[in-house]
Amino acid sequence: MIVITSNLTPEEQVQDIIAVIEREGLQVHLSRGADHTVIGLVGGVTPKLAEHLRQMKGVQNVVKISKSYKLASRDFHPEDTVIDIRGVKIGGENLVIMGGPCAVESPEQINEIARLVKASGAQVLRGGAFKPRTGPYSFQGVGVEGLTMMAEAGKRHGLLTITEVMTPEYVDICAEHADILQVGTRNMQNFDLLRKLGTCGRPVLLKRGFSATYDELLNAAEYILAGGNRDVMLCERGIRTFETYTRNTLDLTAIPVLQSLSHLPVISDPSHGTGRRELVAPMSKASVAAGANGLIIEIHTDPDNSMTGDGVQSLFPDQFDALLRDLEKIAPLVGRKFSNSPEAVSVV
Amino acid sequence: MIVITSNLTPEEQVQDIIAVIEREGLQVHLSRGADHTVIGLVGGVTPKLAEHLRQMKGVQNVVKISKSYKLASRDFHPEDTVIDIRGVKIGGENLVIMGGPCAVESPEQINEIARLVKASGAQVLRGGAFKPRTGPYSFQGVGVEGLTMMAEAGKRHGLLTITEVMTPEYVDICAEHADILQVGTRNMQNFDLLRKLGTCGRPVLLKRGFSATYDELLNAAEYILAGGNRDVMLCERGIRTFETYTRNTLDLTAIPVLQSLSHLPVISDPSHGTGRRELVAPMSKASVAAGANGLIIEIHTDPDNSMTGDGVQSLFPDQFDALLRDLEKIAPLVGRKFSNSPEAVSVV
Amino acid sequence: MIVITSNLTPEEQVQDIIAVIEREGLQVHLSRGADHTVIGLVGGVTPKLAEHLRQMKGVQNVVKISKSYKLASRDFHPEDTVIDIRGVKIGGENLVIMGGPCAVESPEQINEIARLVKASGAQVLRGGAFKPRTGPYSFQGVGVEGLTMMAEAGKRHGLLTITEVMTPEYVDICAEHADILQVGTRNMQNFDLLRKLGTCGRPVLLKRGFSATYDELLNAAEYILAGGNRDVMLCERGIRTFETYTRNTLDLTAIPVLQSLSHLPVISDPSHGTGRRELVAPMSKASVAAGANGLIIEIHTDPDNSMTGDGVQSLFPDQFDALLRDLEKIAPLVGRKFSNSPEAVSVV
Amino acid sequence: MIVITSNLTPEEQVQDIIAVIEREGLQVHLSRGADHTVIGLVGGVTPKLAEHLRQMKGVQNVVKISKSYKLASRDFHPEDTVIDIRGVKIGGENLVIMGGPCAVESPEQINEIARLVKASGAQVLRGGAFKPRTGPYSFQGVGVEGLTMMAEAGKRHGLLTITEVMTPEYVDICAEHADILQVGTRNMQNFDLLRKLGTCGRPVLLKRGFSATYDELLNAAEYILAGGNRDVMLCERGIRTFETYTRNTLDLTAIPVLQSLSHLPVISDPSHGTGRRELVAPMSKASVAAGANGLIIEIHTDPDNSMTGDGVQSLFPDQFDALLRDLEKIAPLVGRKFSNSPEAVSVV
Repeated sequence: MIVITSNLTPEEQVQDIIAVIEREGLQVHLSRGADHTVIGLVGGVTPKLAEHLRQMKGVQNVVKISKSYKLASRDFHPEDTVIDIRGVKIGGENLVIMGGPCAVESPEQINEIARLVKASGAQVLRGGAFKPRTGPYSFQGVGVEGLTMMAEAGKRHGLLTITEVMTPEYVDICAEHADILQVGTRNMQNFDLLRKLGTCGRPVLLKRGFSATYDELLNAAEYILAGGNRDVMLCERGIRTFETYTRNTLDLTAIPVLQSLSHLPVISDPSHGTGRRELVAPMSKASVAAGANGLIIEIHTDPDNSMTGDGVQSLFPDQFDALLRDLEKIAPLVGRKFSNSPEAVSVV
Repeated sequence: MIVITSNLTPEEQVQDIIAVIEREGLQVHLSRGADHTVIGLVGGVTPKLAEHLRQMKGVQNVVKISKSYKLASRDFHPEDTVIDIRGVKIGGENLVIMGGPCAVESPEQINEIARLVKASGAQVLRGGAFKPRTGPYSFQGVGVEGLTMMAEAGKRHGLLTITEVMTPEYVDICAEHADILQVGTRNMQNFDLLRKLGTCGRPVLLKRGFSATYDELLNAAEYILAGGNRDVMLCERGIRTFETYTRNTLDLTAIPVLQSLSHLPVISDPSHGTGRRELVAPMSKASVAAGANGLIIEIHTDPDNSMTGDGVQSLFPDQFDALLRDLEKIAPLVGRKFSNSPEAVSVV
Repeated sequence: MIVITSNLTPEEQVQDIIAVIEREGLQVHLSRGADHTVIGLVGGVTPKLAEHLRQMKGVQNVVKISKSYKLASRDFHPEDTVIDIRGVKIGGENLVIMGGPCAVESPEQINEIARLVKASGAQVLRGGAFKPRTGPYSFQGVGVEGLTMMAEAGKRHGLLTITEVMTPEYVDICAEHADILQVGTRNMQNFDLLRKLGTCGRPVLLKRGFSATYDELLNAAEYILAGGNRDVMLCERGIRTFETYTRNTLDLTAIPVLQSLSHLPVISDPSHGTGRRELVAPMSKASVAAGANGLIIEIHTDPDNSMTGDGVQSLFPDQFDALLRDLEKIAPLVGRKFSNSPEAVSVV
Repeated sequence: MIVITSNLTPEEQVQDIIAVIEREGLQVHLSRGADHTVIGLVGGVTPKLAEHLRQMKGVQNVVKISKSYKLASRDFHPEDTVIDIRGVKIGGENLVIMGGPCAVESPEQINEIARLVKASGAQVLRGGAFKPRTGPYSFQGVGVEGLTMMAEAGKRHGLLTITEVMTPEYVDICAEHADILQVGTRNMQNFDLLRKLGTCGRPVLLKRGFSATYDELLNAAEYILAGGNRDVMLCERGIRTFETYTRNTLDLTAIPVLQSLSHLPVISDPSHGTGRRELVAPMSKASVAAGANGLIIEIHTDPDNSMTGDGVQSLFPDQFDALLRDLEKIAPLVGRKFSNSPEAVSVV
């Protein structure tokens, strides 16, 4: 349930309302917007309490939210969430571009790709240190060392960094080295991981499970939000269907749907969403035209020899550059502008 | 199998090659492009014949096409098919817009909608006279009368017309009244209907079955092409997945994939593809950005009272108009321009 | 809407009720069971008529059926439909076995397989004369001649026959030669075909579309029933999912679900449902254990050289025989017994 | 790659082969069967090593396994794995029945259900102490206390126990209290959890992800096996499809397929697989007829008030009892017999 007060409601009255709710043993989440302050109640609300709140001073309305998620819903938080990471804004009218290899392989590799990604105008460097692999005998990532290699490349070239975290015990070390933590498609419902990310102090990009409904994705986000972390991005990365020509079926309708149900930024991943290099550019353009708040794209300088074998879906750097030039033209037609670029940091 | 000759090959040699093929009892399909003339062989080719052809004068190459479709494949016909209907071009760089109600309901309804569709800049009027319905007790369309109502509205306002045909026996009467015949998603593998359309003398828009693979769609197109009708458009209209929030999952990746596998124009149907009015505009823009050759969109002046109950996915005329203004800006960024507009024809 | 009267209601009162309904321009479907006579109303029922009927003599109850199908529903027809074809009973406690090749290839082939099928204890000979094929260049069946070959083999060996009909124009000739007409998975929503089958005078086996819901299947059956043909069997033959190891995913849960929603017999097709010979026996046993009213199984004496290339899913005759011996033991444990065997007819 | 030696090969020669492999830095897995000893090599095998091994004394054959899993494959381990837990055998000809509530709620609840489960002839008590829930505000299980409640109930009534473990950090405490650890459908690719289970010292029941292919399930099992734990059961529990009438689509074909690809026991879960009480009995019978090695079934004494809200799929105890009586009759017809019953242990 949510209690809506206007912005003219004095702070004193807001605090009175909160006190009443907490006295009943319920938790309170506050969302202050331009026009309204919305007080979310977490826990079982009795009809008596609802009625009591409805009659308090400063309350405009008391609304029962039938959705199972609350903090993630636009009913609770009508305005777009805009995440600010060292000056780089994600959400709202901003279009963020994340680029990089599937996996960090060596300092040279990640540095060179970072240089190219930055030169093309991206703001975030992607790269996996820990790789989720279907079978136990495949390359599993270079591990913790990969985190430091990527952090250094990001600082040197003026890029934020994003990396996947697969298990609660690695959240802290990933949070130490990366600016954004990513939850992979197979872990969307790894609830202990989600809970841990709720207190990690870093923005989280949550990928949709390859067979998860919109509702399940938003409930997964709710786990992170309920832990106190408000900086969550949703990511469409393709769903599993009967079609086998593409690796997945990129569901671009997810973009406007999630944006209508939720205030969280929605990022599109055309690399995993299609699994084929030649489809990344058209689906990136389509993602932006559909209203995406950002893109996460695999690029590689030597895709045929990538260690994960995912090179077939990686763009060559010049293709990435050409794509970004096209996106710069499309973005303003759908109310988007490139996020501003982070500064390089001197690396000793 | 296909035999490739250059454009410098004298016509006489081409005829010699054809003669050899026909002598073996095989059928020949000829495709003349700017650089090459491609001779397609339909029927079982012996290794001996293949070898013989390879050594004939004027033959550059003999290629075995492993795909089960041939006339629909870009291997056989490398250049985009551009269909010309009374001066309106569909395919290639042209973007065609088809708009109209789900079903023709009355002369007044279809006339008024035709007027609005034309005013917004569309080239084709859509409308169903025969409606495929899941259950036998639902409204099944107004029937043959609907065809004449729509034909008249199209002529008066200067629009081509497209209508669905559901069964072989109605092909002739539909072809008499409409400019383009549409095969619905449930009939994509109604092979007798496809065969009949192969000789109907009208361009055909073939909708992808809601669970058909790209390969199956192209094989269905092959049935029409093999009958002698080269004017086929493919239409992505949403596939059936586990997600229930939308009526279907619009698979926009189909657009660049089908365009790479085939030379046929690809049209997107965001109305059936999403089943929700508020998603039609973003998915239309995304379709164009992905490279679609056209859109087919439902609009209705009174969607709440539409006879099919599909009004929930119909745009209001002013939404349709606003969308087309946006598309005019996006189109040139992806190498598309609106198809030219047909002339009105005086209706006595 | 349905009106329920008891069996003690005098016929005169039943006729009065029917007269009232027909006076309102509605159609009546009558279903007489052991305990109740159920009168189904087809068409729009006004609240006033409903109330009037409720108060008439002999009426026990008036129930609004919210399902879009009616004649197919168990609400309307509580007792199992048992179809009787020349003494062979299908439905209820009877287990019918249909066996034969994918396609009729020659008189010798169909005769030899008929002999083996009969010897193993099956009651029905299956075989396609017209084959629906994904691409136009594949073997399309031997056509009308196949119908007479199969009819003769059936008569000689004492087997009913079933064959697929793909288009309305072939319904009459198929009905002339075969005892049961089959609608294939791609034609489940070929509504003109369904309408034509509603008046064909032969029992119909309706295969579930490979992506059709239970509700859509029952609505498709309703098209046939609404035409006056009450002898419809439903057939589960596998649905399309993300799993590619099997050709389809045989959805055995469909059996108890369809039997609870409908009174029509439910047949299982483990051959197309799995697409692999070695899976036919376990899935046949599972089908019977789940309560199926019958099985339709492909067998072939020389599967590696079958003309449709579907041999990989055909049982060898000795495997078919061994399977039927196992099924005879399982059947009584789930309340089923083999349908009785038809007599051979002398063929001049 | 695997090296096959005969049982007549002297142990000395086997040890020589192993020494050669280990000298190359590869890991060895040994599988001793009745006819053959199979030596599995984990790691990259050079052609030179392969050739060398092929020529060693005692080697019958050297086979490259192209599947990405190895220890899970029947190629490597041709005989059925039979897991023995305190005398209860799972796998091979044994049919194990696991029954119990969705969640442990109280000592009284779990004790009463344990009594009934045992009385009906089951061997294993199921019950969740930690529950994976789509949203963060749903009941998440009673936690560690639930483990002791269930362990005590199991001992008192002579039942093994199985419970779900959701995160690596809880593996040890779950292994302390339960006989079998279960991996839920959402965690099938939680690779850190799988690795931890590889060394937990308890048999593991691995549920198929609701959108996982057979191949992905077997690769997930491989993670556990590769850690040294050979006691893994696979569990089919329904996949996600377009059909919404049932909660999932129970894919019974998985049973014979997994049994042909792998030597591991395959258990069926008709409760989650259908989500509807009335479908549990027919699908249980079908599972056994398809060759399942066991069933895991939800039962509850008061399903309408179950704390997880999953009561709608729980059997009443008398339904469970009636079902087991039916299964006792079907089992011998497909080569199965009930696993023997564990002894009760006095609880102080």
